[in-house]
Amino acid sequence: MKIGVLGTGRVGKVIGGKLVALGHDVMMGSRTADNPAAMAWATDHGAKQGTFADAAAHGELVFHCGKGEHALAIAMAARPGLAGKVLIDLTNPLDFSKGMPPTLSVCNDDSLGERLQAAMPEVKVVKTLNTLNCELMVAPGKLVEATTIFVSGDDLEAKAKVRALLTEGFGWRDVIDLGDITTARGVEMWLPLWIRLWGALGNADFNLRVVRAKP
Amino acid sequence: MKIGVLGTGRVGKVIGGKLVALGHDVMMGSRTADNPAAMAWATDHGAKQGTFADAAAHGELVFHCGKGEHALAIAMAARPGLAGKVLIDLTNPLDFSKGMPPTLSVCNDDSLGERLQAAMPEVKVVKTLNTLNCELMVAPGKLVEATTIFVSGDDLEAKAKVRALLTEGFGWRDVIDLGDITTARGVEMWLPLWIRLWGALGNADFNLRVVRAKP
Repeated sequence: MKIGVLGTGRVGKVIGGKLVALGHDVMMGSRTADNPAAMAWATDHGAKQGTFADAAAHGELVFHCGKGEHALAIAMAARPGLAGKVLIDLTNPLDFSKGMPPTLSVCNDDSLGERLQAAMPEVKVVKTLNTLNCELMVAPGKLVEATTIFVSGDDLEAKAKVRALLTEGFGWRDVIDLGDITTARGVEMWLPLWIRLWGALGNADFNLRVVRAKP
Repeated sequence: MKIGVLGTGRVGKVIGGKLVALGHDVMMGSRTADNPAAMAWATDHGAKQGTFADAAAHGELVFHCGKGEHALAIAMAARPGLAGKVLIDLTNPLDFSKGMPPTLSVCNDDSLGERLQAAMPEVKVVKTLNTLNCELMVAPGKLVEATTIFVSGDDLEAKAKVRALLTEGFGWRDVIDLGDITTARGVEMWLPLWIRLWGALGNADFNLRVVRAKP
């Protein structure tokens, strides 16, 4: 499948690398068409690179792997290529400007997922995978047992497409559909606990498993 | 042990009932000394009841099981009996005034746990158990496998006392110390995801398990 990846940071590289390994035709998008990090990554991986709009136009599915503070600007730059498509939103509204640990730049009665969806009604935004470290996003088997991820979005067909890639491609077994895009508030507000757990456990190699009651 | 329980709602009754079953000398506190719910509960359980200040004065440990919107007022009423003691804070700052699902009345750069600690520097506040349904707080074995709870607080000795009660009394096996009372932000901001999971799963009989990486 043709897939666009917005962002040249660690998340974009890990997601893009996994997609290439799965045999997909991947284009990494960045602010300019001559981004050295994107050009080097594309050469190393036999992939393509271009602007955010190029990567969005290339993809049947598009991953948003940008930083929270740039998430809306990146989406606006990619928007010409996104109409009618599924945008898989991995971003977190982390605000490091007041020091560590970060706060959230949006939360409680709004979320970054909702802001992206509101800014681009013609795009099908599906929030997922923002709840764990990017190395684990594409390798859930690194954990000692199956864990849980979530999908949030207004479009059922879009969520089904994303779920298929997450399960068949990335190996996820427990994917909970939380509901419409407003449920992105829930998964984004998990980050403050995730950050404290990182501190308490001394590493980011963990995830949550939703455990149900005995029948 | 002598234990005070602040609050006559479902959480107070469930926590109080478990403590009585464990053989503790429990006093339930409410706004007035003649609260019918508290008097009936105390009679049924062979326990005591009184004002918030009475219950706080009675307890070597004191559980705060009040609603978030009343949490500070209840603590202020109990304060005369709390000096130097451990206050186990189970409250959540849920705000239902704007409809369902609730938002949080405090979050992101503050928390109810921190507000309680700041309002009563002479009390050792330990935040815990606010992350799951009260039936499960006292019966973690109802879930299909061991799950995780957290403690947050500034006083190590106070957290050790609380951990002992949680493990030896309530049966918890995985209790993660997140750090000082500011980490209450993390566990309180988990609630929005907990609420969406309740909606998605159709019941509140679940908890999270923190799963670590393979060695």
